[in-house]
Amino acid sequence: MTAPRNLLTDIPATLPQEQFETLLAGKRGFRVERIVSRGHASPPGYWYDQPQHEWVLLLSGQAELEYDAPAARQTLQPGDAVLIPAHRRHRVAATAADSDTVWLAIFHDAD
Amino acid sequence: MTAPRNLLTDIPATLPQEQFETLLAGKRGFRVERIVSRGHASPPGYWYDQPQHEWVLLLSGQAELEYDAPAARQTLQPGDAVLIPAHRRHRVAATAADSDTVWLAIFHDAD
Repeated sequence: MTAPRNLLTDIPATLPQEQFETLLAGKRGFRVERIVSRGHASPPGYWYDQPQHEWVLLLSGQAELEYDAPAARQTLQPGDAVLIPAHRRHRVAATAADSDTVWLAIFHDAD
Repeated sequence: MTAPRNLLTDIPATLPQEQFETLLAGKRGFRVERIVSRGHASPPGYWYDQPQHEWVLLLSGQAELEYDAPAARQTLQPGDAVLIPAHRRHRVAATAADSDTVWLAIFHDAD
């Protein structure tokens, strides 16, 4: 049997870039990632434009998402979950500078 | 655009039974649930025996899982994630009596 793994504490000491790690992947249509940010943000002007829906849950820290066309912003606190529909252009505008921001992201096929 | 929903705070005042809620479901092969427990446990002698793998992440509270054949126990703290393979008989031995235990469970097809 596999021992539990703690997603909040098993974090590298140094984090020059955001860390993306696949936790779980189905043969078909879905993938679960942990993402760890430490003050990171998407490059200015960079937009994610993804073929799959992304459901994200903030486990720790704080983050601000920015959306394009129509422009919008969302601040996420721990426990907040939001669905980013496929091809909804978005970026990470900011993450907490002084603590680790841990995201759980579930990518899944659009209908 | 949908506003974020907080999974830790959007909890019923009274909880006579555990609350199961589907947050997300793919057309094929996976389902995401939030489960809220408040001192609840599986009935004595009752075992879950599921056709799908279940990946669980404890978001708040505390829980103890019990496994059958071979017998084992696992205590889960917030942030702990564990994969319960399909048909691995298990039950919730206990959850925190004095606080809400919030689980995120991802059920997905066995290979």
